[in-house]
Amino acid sequence: MLIEGKNQVIEAIKNDVTINKIVIDKNYMTRKDDVISLAKKQKLKIEFLAKKIMDTMSVTGHHQGYIAETVDFQYCSLEDILTHAKTKEELPFVVLLDGIEDPHNLGAIIRTCECAGVDGIVIPKVRACQVNETVVRTSAGAISNMRIARVTNLKEAITYFKEQNLWIYACEVGGENIYKQNLTGAVGIVIGSEGKGVKPSLKAHCDGIVTLPLKGSVNSLNASVASGICIYEILRQREH
Amino acid sequence: MLIEGKNQVIEAIKNDVTINKIVIDKNYMTRKDDVISLAKKQKLKIEFLAKKIMDTMSVTGHHQGYIAETVDFQYCSLEDILTHAKTKEELPFVVLLDGIEDPHNLGAIIRTCECAGVDGIVIPKVRACQVNETVVRTSAGAISNMRIARVTNLKEAITYFKEQNLWIYACEVGGENIYKQNLTGAVGIVIGSEGKGVKPSLKAHCDGIVTLPLKGSVNSLNASVASGICIYEILRQREH
Repeated sequence: MLIEGKNQVIEAIKNDVTINKIVIDKNYMTRKDDVISLAKKQKLKIEFLAKKIMDTMSVTGHHQGYIAETVDFQYCSLEDILTHAKTKEELPFVVLLDGIEDPHNLGAIIRTCECAGVDGIVIPKVRACQVNETVVRTSAGAISNMRIARVTNLKEAITYFKEQNLWIYACEVGGENIYKQNLTGAVGIVIGSEGKGVKPSLKAHCDGIVTLPLKGSVNSLNASVASGICIYEILRQREH
Repeated sequence: MLIEGKNQVIEAIKNDVTINKIVIDKNYMTRKDDVISLAKKQKLKIEFLAKKIMDTMSVTGHHQGYIAETVDFQYCSLEDILTHAKTKEELPFVVLLDGIEDPHNLGAIIRTCECAGVDGIVIPKVRACQVNETVVRTSAGAISNMRIARVTNLKEAITYFKEQNLWIYACEVGGENIYKQNLTGAVGIVIGSEGKGVKPSLKAHCDGIVTLPLKGSVNSLNASVASGICIYEILRQREH
């Protein structure tokens, strides 16, 4: 997989993503360059190519003169996510995505999760956007510092987390006002897809439903914005 | 201007946007259709055209078979925004955008503002995205129910709001943790552009700076996500 863009490549190096080589616009060869010095320090292989050639390599079309060739994204297990929480000595905080389809939304949600200190994200293997170049780019490098597990069945993931003493809430219309729900414990939040929300069968399997108040005539928020508000409300309750 | 997409056209009709005519895919002519029945009720002119012709009319490329031809977006004045708050008998809640450039971000922020019951949005006339077809579409129809003022100088708008007893905060790094700041009064929040944040000269002119906590290694959230978290935190403090 390619990681494209200056900040994205820097985050990948800093987070010890396995990088085969870094390709940099040959015009940058002689100037003082953060990526070059960082890559040299880590003894990574650097190749300087003409911008035109990089344009043909690029998947997202926005490489800014920096592309890292990495091994494919390494998904983790559900256990890995909880282990990460344990090493931080914090109660687990996980996000489960029920079928996000737009790579820009997935990238933005990964970025939010990383900023909010979420321990890991769970996505389904089918009928949902997987981690690809656009997701990596939209995540602004956050992907390199986030654990993502991929499961055949989200319901089984919810069962597993419930057995591990997490409280699982779906973020959906028609539930308890999120500001009145106590979300301070070990918690997992299920976020629905752009058009359809959380599947009824999954919703029924959760411990509760939390709802963002809506005061206008439009009846829903953008998927990545709604996720952001929800994830930060959990952070606020846990820490403030 | 064109309003494209089913929900977008419905919101425009419901909110009494001045519509010259509505163009609908002629394949929908015979089926039960919400837009057609709503348009007929409002005695709006409907034209049925082939999808191919609509594709050539469309600006966003996502019309879903529904396009409303409207007069250009009507910006309001700063006074109109405060008058709206007064009619709701609520303390004013305004959002000032310092140079948002991406129409998808502007559309998403307008949608969030409408959902959160914000009284109005202020944007600068230059060096910022204006209301266009992509903004209208991304706002999911929210634009038809939102007051947007366009000013030459955001600093003067801040001065005006301060004179009207609003407290103006910039949402930026390096300020007071937003969860520790009292935001329950008449309030305006300044949100910076995607890359550069709020301009230093504007920041200095605000009553305070509020900051979202960041716990990861990526040092910023997506602009529309950060706005959403900030706007909903104000809503939470005001109502819960």
